[in-house]
Amino acid sequence: MDGAWEQVGPDRTAYQGFVRVIHRTLRLPDGREAVWDMLDAPATATVLPLTVDGDVVLVRQFRAGPMAQVLSLPGGLVEEGEPPEAAAARELREETGYAAELIEPVVAIHANFRTRPSYTLVARGCRVVGEPDLDDFEDCEPVVVSVAELRRLLRRGEVVTAEQAYLALDFLGLL
Amino acid sequence: MDGAWEQVGPDRTAYQGFVRVIHRTLRLPDGREAVWDMLDAPATATVLPLTVDGDVVLVRQFRAGPMAQVLSLPGGLVEEGEPPEAAAARELREETGYAAELIEPVVAIHANFRTRPSYTLVARGCRVVGEPDLDDFEDCEPVVVSVAELRRLLRRGEVVTAEQAYLALDFLGLL
Repeated sequence: MDGAWEQVGPDRTAYQGFVRVIHRTLRLPDGREAVWDMLDAPATATVLPLTVDGDVVLVRQFRAGPMAQVLSLPGGLVEEGEPPEAAAARELREETGYAAELIEPVVAIHANFRTRPSYTLVARGCRVVGEPDLDDFEDCEPVVVSVAELRRLLRRGEVVTAEQAYLALDFLGLL
Repeated sequence: MDGAWEQVGPDRTAYQGFVRVIHRTLRLPDGREAVWDMLDAPATATVLPLTVDGDVVLVRQFRAGPMAQVLSLPGGLVEEGEPPEAAAARELREETGYAAELIEPVVAIHANFRTRPSYTLVARGCRVVGEPDLDDFEDCEPVVVSVAELRRLLRRGEVVTAEQAYLALDFLGLL
């Protein structure tokens, strides 16, 4: 089908819990209408932190999907109106105790069933500035690895934010 | 917090539409209990198809998240009890009209808020065997690109299945 799909009417809330599911009605190029279920959650900011020594700061935390401790890049939700750089700096500080000299955007990717994008960023010149400052039910610890070790972890599927990790490494010329 | 988190009781359905949201109660290592909202959707199989000429077959399709035509690897939902290889072969055939000589698993990644993993696979020796065979509301067309062009598209954030594309390229030694 060629031509544009158009939204018909406003999004409607189908479920509101910790996540929100909405119904979005779309008109297809052939004139038919269809209702999509979409996940209406805040945008996310995920950051690859490079230390002053050129290593990468990951976090190990429990995740209810795999029901296990897993490795990921630091990151979290972007608040309404907040620049992704600010969200990345905040999550980096809270989850790892590190702060960066410079945070740069890499790219935003907008998944199919979500209303808002996932931002990937890199943080350069990271140093420890304090203890992690975790939310009540957060359970994570920083894990510093070399870029070569991150590449091995990615290939083994052991990093759950693999998309953002690869995008950031590609941006940095480290693939 | 050290120690294991445990699930308490069965998952409960909080919302059932095209997607299903469940409540999963977890006991933290410190004894507290918390309820997680999770997306209970089928596993996905996403495949990087290499043609007999060494090019990659992508699909361009409308996605309601970005509200635009976007590029992705072929893929779709894994049916209950279906091997991911079979789902990958089926989606490849239906979405692109290509079939493979060999489909190999790369890795499975289990995202935080989902009950089932995302499988990444590679399909080698792909050739056109017919026309795409699309579901009623699918609107996609095959787009054949070189590996170098796929790398450029990935860096620009123009491939929505970037995670699976990078994992597959890494597996193939093409990064």
